[in-house]
Amino acid sequence: MKVGDKHYRSIWLDTSTDEVNIIDQRWLPHEFRVVTLKSLDDFATAIRDMWVRGAPLIGATAAYGIAELMRRDPSDKALNEAYDFLHATRPTAINLRWALDAMSSTLSALPENQRQEAAFKKAAEICDDDVETNRMIGVHGLEIIKKIAATKKPGEPVNILTHCNAGWLATVDWGTATSPMYHAMEAGINIHIWVDETRPRNQGAQLTSWEMVGNDIPHHLIVDNAGGHLMQHGQVDAVIVGTDRTTSHGDVCNKIGTYLKALAAKDNNVPFYVALPSSTIDWTIGDGLKEIPIEERNGQEVTHIYGKLENGENTFVQISPDGTPGGNPAFDVTPAHLVTGLITERGVADASKEGLLALFPEQKSVA
Amino acid sequence: MKVGDKHYRSIWLDTSTDEVNIIDQRWLPHEFRVVTLKSLDDFATAIRDMWVRGAPLIGATAAYGIAELMRRDPSDKALNEAYDFLHATRPTAINLRWALDAMSSTLSALPENQRQEAAFKKAAEICDDDVETNRMIGVHGLEIIKKIAATKKPGEPVNILTHCNAGWLATVDWGTATSPMYHAMEAGINIHIWVDETRPRNQGAQLTSWEMVGNDIPHHLIVDNAGGHLMQHGQVDAVIVGTDRTTSHGDVCNKIGTYLKALAAKDNNVPFYVALPSSTIDWTIGDGLKEIPIEERNGQEVTHIYGKLENGENTFVQISPDGTPGGNPAFDVTPAHLVTGLITERGVADASKEGLLALFPEQKSVA
Repeated sequence: MKVGDKHYRSIWLDTSTDEVNIIDQRWLPHEFRVVTLKSLDDFATAIRDMWVRGAPLIGATAAYGIAELMRRDPSDKALNEAYDFLHATRPTAINLRWALDAMSSTLSALPENQRQEAAFKKAAEICDDDVETNRMIGVHGLEIIKKIAATKKPGEPVNILTHCNAGWLATVDWGTATSPMYHAMEAGINIHIWVDETRPRNQGAQLTSWEMVGNDIPHHLIVDNAGGHLMQHGQVDAVIVGTDRTTSHGDVCNKIGTYLKALAAKDNNVPFYVALPSSTIDWTIGDGLKEIPIEERNGQEVTHIYGKLENGENTFVQISPDGTPGGNPAFDVTPAHLVTGLITERGVADASKEGLLALFPEQKSVA
Repeated sequence: MKVGDKHYRSIWLDTSTDEVNIIDQRWLPHEFRVVTLKSLDDFATAIRDMWVRGAPLIGATAAYGIAELMRRDPSDKALNEAYDFLHATRPTAINLRWALDAMSSTLSALPENQRQEAAFKKAAEICDDDVETNRMIGVHGLEIIKKIAATKKPGEPVNILTHCNAGWLATVDWGTATSPMYHAMEAGINIHIWVDETRPRNQGAQLTSWEMVGNDIPHHLIVDNAGGHLMQHGQVDAVIVGTDRTTSHGDVCNKIGTYLKALAAKDNNVPFYVALPSSTIDWTIGDGLKEIPIEERNGQEVTHIYGKLENGENTFVQISPDGTPGGNPAFDVTPAHLVTGLITERGVADASKEGLLALFPEQKSVA
């Protein structure tokens, strides 16, 4: 999507230097920094320390990390060690495993001297597939927004609430939850987005808002506390969020706080949609609450906040007193019964095993 | 409660100077600043700009504001104008009106030359009554905590989640939601508090955490998004919050985000208590969602956050991109059916008209 007047993806191979570039998202929205990742350590750090984040982009970055390694050491040993090393960087997003599996199965079938070329080709394919997948999520999500728009009085916007950043910055392009929004804008539908700031890391305030500004989408930033009140007062027509892992039964693991919004949506009859590429579905597990490991991150992410000073300098400030520790679970699980529908690249599925299998009948072994 | 080794109230008449002092809470937790309020404008500014906040303390401050004015101008005209002026400072908390009514009815019955003395006496009485009221809330709330503690294995703490600051800083002393916690500590019960940071103004991070540190109560600061997840995983035994206004039917208006926690508590069978002095009950209205005006505050409270730099300096940082507006409803309404009980100075009431009238049978005209 757009940064200024230029179109960007969130990760790309610079064809002039043959190097992989990413947007270092830690500095957004105040600084737009492009970083070149060179070693496997660079890729692991970029994922672990959240220079890149978002399930699909984590997968794409891991894929290029493997590719980059193949230049130096295309051995089975290196491949296997890199798989484990990258897999350990973030525990919740399923796309990481999915992308690593895709790279590993492609490469281990080849002789070592063909692996480098094949790895870059496969990583590029993962990226291109992600873009097309997200475009299709937008096409299907657009239909939902169109139907809501048809119920509105002239001039009234469709109000959509989103949590965290499931935007183009979380994927390679388009985003998942945002793709229907971008498609609605292109279709000339009057939309307005409530952007949850998404503490502790403020992906809404820092990333989704920045996307909205860059692509001229009307929006307001709200605190994570506000969504319920807005729904009680008819100011939200639909919720669309992303997911880091979806179980075969339709339970949705996403950024901490998603569950609270889903409860409020249910309580106020607001449709609650989750947009996802099918690579985010973990067919091996059914019960998200019992089976998905929830990453517990450093408490300092709670006690310290990143922002811009009046003089333009970027810094962290401590919001709590010395002596107060932070507790920091990074994700929560929204049970399927709170989810109106799963917007996938193949269409909108019921959040259930039957619903998912109707769209993905090729799945054989399903929990 | 304690600040360092000294006992403080949140507002007091300095007997040596005959002046009213408050703690300017905007600088907490990083700076402890005591400010003297001299003119009616000072009092109004202190309430409007949230140097003091919390429904009971707002009432006490308004009472002393009237008293201070009586020194200079004890006329009916001044009294009536000051009533309107102070009443307009914050629209949601009912205690403001309650305290102004108490002052006004006491003073208008007296000749002008007796008003100054009577006003300071009445304001002091409002403060002392608040302290006793909150002490009794603690006595009744302690019984709830004791019952939960009795179900715990040895060494296991009672985990209580609270939202915003309904602590001693929000009242004259003890707090409402925190009074049971302070009483439990004194009773030697093993407790642990999950403190919601309470965006946008971070009263949890800045005030409740500071109270917990100052009074040695084990606690963790969490983001407002985290409570639902903790409840799903059995890590919250009870929620206790305060309220800015409670209707005669038991609907509870409190800091934005309270409703979301109440939904999660209901969904996970976690008891959800609201602690309140009866002065917070608005007997004139029944339906909180329809009838309580919700203050919409400046969007800059969402886009900018207060904190401490590494060098110790306090400042605001901007968390969102230029061009993103903030939406900032300050309160929400939790319907009575989500509330397990209302902890008042007279005992624990069902959140219903019948429940409240059983404790407050003297109420005649009830919506």
